[in-house]
Amino acid sequence: MARTRLTPEREGELYAAVLDLLREVGYDALTMDAVAARTRSSKATLYRQWGSKPALVVTALRHNKPVSLAEIDTGSLRGDFHAVLQRTDDCQMEKDSALMRGLSHAVHESPELHQALRELLIEPEMTGLDELLRRAVDRGELRPDNPALKYIPHMMIGAIAARQLVEDRAVDQAFLIDYVDSVVLPALGV
Amino acid sequence: MARTRLTPEREGELYAAVLDLLREVGYDALTMDAVAARTRSSKATLYRQWGSKPALVVTALRHNKPVSLAEIDTGSLRGDFHAVLQRTDDCQMEKDSALMRGLSHAVHESPELHQALRELLIEPEMTGLDELLRRAVDRGELRPDNPALKYIPHMMIGAIAARQLVEDRAVDQAFLIDYVDSVVLPALGV
Repeated sequence: MARTRLTPEREGELYAAVLDLLREVGYDALTMDAVAARTRSSKATLYRQWGSKPALVVTALRHNKPVSLAEIDTGSLRGDFHAVLQRTDDCQMEKDSALMRGLSHAVHESPELHQALRELLIEPEMTGLDELLRRAVDRGELRPDNPALKYIPHMMIGAIAARQLVEDRAVDQAFLIDYVDSVVLPALGV
Repeated sequence: MARTRLTPEREGELYAAVLDLLREVGYDALTMDAVAARTRSSKATLYRQWGSKPALVVTALRHNKPVSLAEIDTGSLRGDFHAVLQRTDDCQMEKDSALMRGLSHAVHESPELHQALRELLIEPEMTGLDELLRRAVDRGELRPDNPALKYIPHMMIGAIAARQLVEDRAVDQAFLIDYVDSVVLPALGV
C-alpha cells in the first residue's frame, strides 16, 4: 500500500479522526463513508491507502501507540515493564480502554478485524515483548523455560479487563505497576 | 422476592431458556416479552419473581454454575483450584465464554446489569474464594500478606479473555489448569 501522497501530519489527523469516531459510535456503526466525511477524504482514497475498514481501524490504533516495545531497554526486566507502562498517561489509558471495550465484541463478530488486529497490533507487540524477555534471559534475570513466559499477554489483558469488571474502576498507571510487581514478576520468578 | 409458586424444575427450565436466548440474540435484544413468550410465562410473573431483566439474567447465570466455590475443600490450594476448574467441562466452558462475551459490552452500557452481576455473581464467588484462600493460609501454604492475593480474579479473567484474543482458541480445562500451575500458584508463592 503506497502512502506517499499523505504527509505524516495529515496521516496523523486522519488516524485521530478514525479513533474519535470509533469512541463515539463504536466499530459496527463506523462506516468508510463516515470516515471520508469526517476527514474530508474520498472513499476511493481511503480504500486505496488502507484496503479495508479493519485495516484502517487497526493502523489508526497502532499509530496511537507512541513508543514501540522494541525501543525500551532499561537494563532490568522490572525497569522495562515499568517503562512500558509509563509511556502511556492515565488519561490515554482510559481512552485506550474505551477503545478496546468497543472493539472486544466486534472482534468476535468480524474475523477480518480480528486478523488485522493480530497481524498489525498483537503480533508486532509480541515480537517486541519477546525481544525484551530475551534480553532478561541473557542477563540471567529470567529462566528461559519458565512456564509463565507464554502467559504474559494473558496476565496483562486480565489486569485491564478485570479492573473495570471486578473493581468498577478505570485502569491507571499506579494499578498496572502494582500488578506487574505483585503478579507478573513473581510468576516469572524475578 | 417470593419464588414459592415455581417448582425447582420449572425454575431451572426458565433459567435455561433465558441463557439460550442470551446466546442467540445477546443481552440488548433480550426482552422480558421474549422471555415470557419462550417460557410461556406472563411478564407480570417474571417481574414479580425477579424484579428486573438484569436480575433475571444474573440469577439465570448463577443458577448455571453447578458447584459453589464454598463447597470445594480438597486439602491443598492447588487441589482446590483444580477442583474449581474440573467442575465445568470443556463444552460448558465454551458456552460460558460465549455468554460472557455477549455480556462484556452490555456490562459497560448498563450500570444496573453491572451492579446485579457484582451482587449476585461476582461478590458471592469472591466470598467463596476468600474462604478457600483463608484455609490455605491456615494450613501454612500461603502468606496472608502476599500482594498477588488481591489479583486472583484479574489473573483468571485474563486467561479467559486473552486465549480467544491472542491465541484465537476457546478456553478449555487443560489450558486453565496449566495457567493456574504456571501463573497463579507461582505468583502466590505456592
